[in-house]
Amino acid sequence: MKNWLNVSDLHDFSIHNLPYGVFISDGRPTLCMAIGDHMINLRKAAEIGIFGSLNLDISVFQSEVLNDFIATGKDSWSEFRAFIQASLCDEASSLYTYRDDVLVNRLDAEMALPLHIGDYTDFYSSIEHATNVGMMFRDPENALLPNWKHIPVGYHGRASSIVVSGTEIKRPSGQTMPPDATQPVFGPTKRLDFELEMAFVVGKTTQVGQQVSTTDAEDHIFGMTVFNDWSARDIQKWEYVPLGPFLAKNFASTISPWIVTMEALEPFRCASVKQDPEVLPYLQYQGDKNFDINLEVDLTPEGSNASTICKSNFKYMYWNMAQQLAHHTVNGCNINVGDMMASGTISGKDEQSYGSMLELCWGGKKDIALSDGQTRKFILDGDTITMRAFCQNDAIRVGFGESIGKIKA
Amino acid sequence: MKNWLNVSDLHDFSIHNLPYGVFISDGRPTLCMAIGDHMINLRKAAEIGIFGSLNLDISVFQSEVLNDFIATGKDSWSEFRAFIQASLCDEASSLYTYRDDVLVNRLDAEMALPLHIGDYTDFYSSIEHATNVGMMFRDPENALLPNWKHIPVGYHGRASSIVVSGTEIKRPSGQTMPPDATQPVFGPTKRLDFELEMAFVVGKTTQVGQQVSTTDAEDHIFGMTVFNDWSARDIQKWEYVPLGPFLAKNFASTISPWIVTMEALEPFRCASVKQDPEVLPYLQYQGDKNFDINLEVDLTPEGSNASTICKSNFKYMYWNMAQQLAHHTVNGCNINVGDMMASGTISGKDEQSYGSMLELCWGGKKDIALSDGQTRKFILDGDTITMRAFCQNDAIRVGFGESIGKIKA
Repeated sequence: MKNWLNVSDLHDFSIHNLPYGVFISDGRPTLCMAIGDHMINLRKAAEIGIFGSLNLDISVFQSEVLNDFIATGKDSWSEFRAFIQASLCDEASSLYTYRDDVLVNRLDAEMALPLHIGDYTDFYSSIEHATNVGMMFRDPENALLPNWKHIPVGYHGRASSIVVSGTEIKRPSGQTMPPDATQPVFGPTKRLDFELEMAFVVGKTTQVGQQVSTTDAEDHIFGMTVFNDWSARDIQKWEYVPLGPFLAKNFASTISPWIVTMEALEPFRCASVKQDPEVLPYLQYQGDKNFDINLEVDLTPEGSNASTICKSNFKYMYWNMAQQLAHHTVNGCNINVGDMMASGTISGKDEQSYGSMLELCWGGKKDIALSDGQTRKFILDGDTITMRAFCQNDAIRVGFGESIGKIKA
Repeated sequence: MKNWLNVSDLHDFSIHNLPYGVFISDGRPTLCMAIGDHMINLRKAAEIGIFGSLNLDISVFQSEVLNDFIATGKDSWSEFRAFIQASLCDEASSLYTYRDDVLVNRLDAEMALPLHIGDYTDFYSSIEHATNVGMMFRDPENALLPNWKHIPVGYHGRASSIVVSGTEIKRPSGQTMPPDATQPVFGPTKRLDFELEMAFVVGKTTQVGQQVSTTDAEDHIFGMTVFNDWSARDIQKWEYVPLGPFLAKNFASTISPWIVTMEALEPFRCASVKQDPEVLPYLQYQGDKNFDINLEVDLTPEGSNASTICKSNFKYMYWNMAQQLAHHTVNGCNINVGDMMASGTISGKDEQSYGSMLELCWGGKKDIALSDGQTRKFILDGDTITMRAFCQNDAIRVGFGESIGKIKA
């Protein structure tokens, strides 16, 4: 689509994308929208009056997080995105007139966490991942637990320790029970791992007692981001029975700085995996509810080159977001704008698509080869994990940017 | 202690207590402090200038939740409490002068949720409860799991659905696998239960990567409240392996409207249960870290009388709050002012002290007798569950008020 910034339709942040983020401007977290290698300072644009013709309450751009803007609702998101798209194609627009005031170099920008995340839920919705983990830790002949094909299994995680891409991650210490030991020991985790996930952001609040159907679910989803659910496998193994993962996960999770809207993802909608056995009526749905999103993970040792160690795709998910949200609220649990719900590790069928090092090294039994000749089983100090996500067809590309985290001792 | 309101030292809200809450004044959530059957409207008192002599930034009383006040820190909590205590004993105080402007009848007041709760964690720290559950659901000979005496086991819960006492609770629906069935079914829970818990409120924020030692833990705790962790046992049984309880718990939790400060609880400090085997160094502690808090649960059928079906005590806890907080942060997980951390069900040794109906009816095998001749195994529609907590010695009493919830279909 021709635009006066000449951003290619195949750029991650093409005019077909227009994701939202928050960057630091004069020391203050400021809402922005990415276009190519630029971004639009939305606070400044609102102050100048560029959005004067919209129905939107522009005071939402004074906030330091996206929540107030998101709370304006789906029609408002749509109107705003169409306005920016049109403005970027029109040299008579006020955005063009004031372009030197509101456009910022995206590549130099310091990004911040774009949301106030009230509650964070992590699902476990990839059948390949659940099967792999079940084969390693439980029974290879009965890898999936009895509830797995009936319930989009999930659990509550820690919202406070979700950080933005680029934040260094301190290797967590904790309690573990080494193999053959009779007493637990304390120390830095020896099995630090990533989990390749996507997360969606809740766009519409409900009240306690209210249910969201699979039909209505998409009205409650604002957009998506790349999510690294860092995991300490040795801590997890010792702590997680019977109440689930806790300290193995809650030291940090890293998201990309950009929230890609569901409207931008619309051209990449696709069918979900066929579910067998049939699920209960409240989990049934109509139409295509999954999205074709390419996923990649790089591991970069300190001072060396990046190796891509995983290529997966969001479309492999057994349970889709509409089902996750319908399940989460079927008991009346309320959701709030800005809540984050992650997919769980996204693995595919072939080994290259496994979304965690636990699976890639098959519980420590194999080496993961890197391009510089090194090998890994789990993450070492100084390693950087970079996750990328993007949608692409013949005509356009929509990217999520990167979730980057470097491990320090 | 003689005070011009003539509130007895043995009143739940004696001058030795002075708990904080939030009530609705002219439609607006307003900070308050309870004294006897009265409460002090703290916003109004601040506006009148009653707190002018304090170091405190009185703009915190313009907030609709306690978080900003709590964030002023431990010295400030202490100074403020001492000032109110002294003012209540002094007819020359400005509080006395303006008493008609700022005192409100507590018994008529509409209370609100007193905090913005960022994250909520639930522990599992009563050895009697963990043993009872293990005996019923796993192996009576090995009721406690191997990690239980080494780790204060906990998991993340849902912050959004924590509600204030008096809020009606809708019986949740969900997916269950009935005994001997081969397919799950959907419908209202048939095993609705309470869990008698206490929760503490985080009083001091930490950054990601920071640890809180057992020695420093009490600087990070503002106060405590009564916590009913409503639970749907049939939903829980089907969903909880391997990632822990989710929809069985997150439909609602009910807290009492009052946060009792740790300073008010100081006279009731007591030793914790002796831990054997010895715990790892980061969980060891000095001094008395538990509190002698009497706990009671009433069940009141619709249109009938209350029956007290449980009498327990917080001092039975195997893991204390300092240990819980040290464990929670040992991996660098950050905490924020207003976070809530609940104890897990508090059961004692004798049957009358079991803190859930699951234990009181021993998994459905026994009837729980009520004073009106009825019996229960689990909670029926129309039943009201009332939890009370109070500390008492020969001279003074400090109460928490009640956590009340009535079940509707």
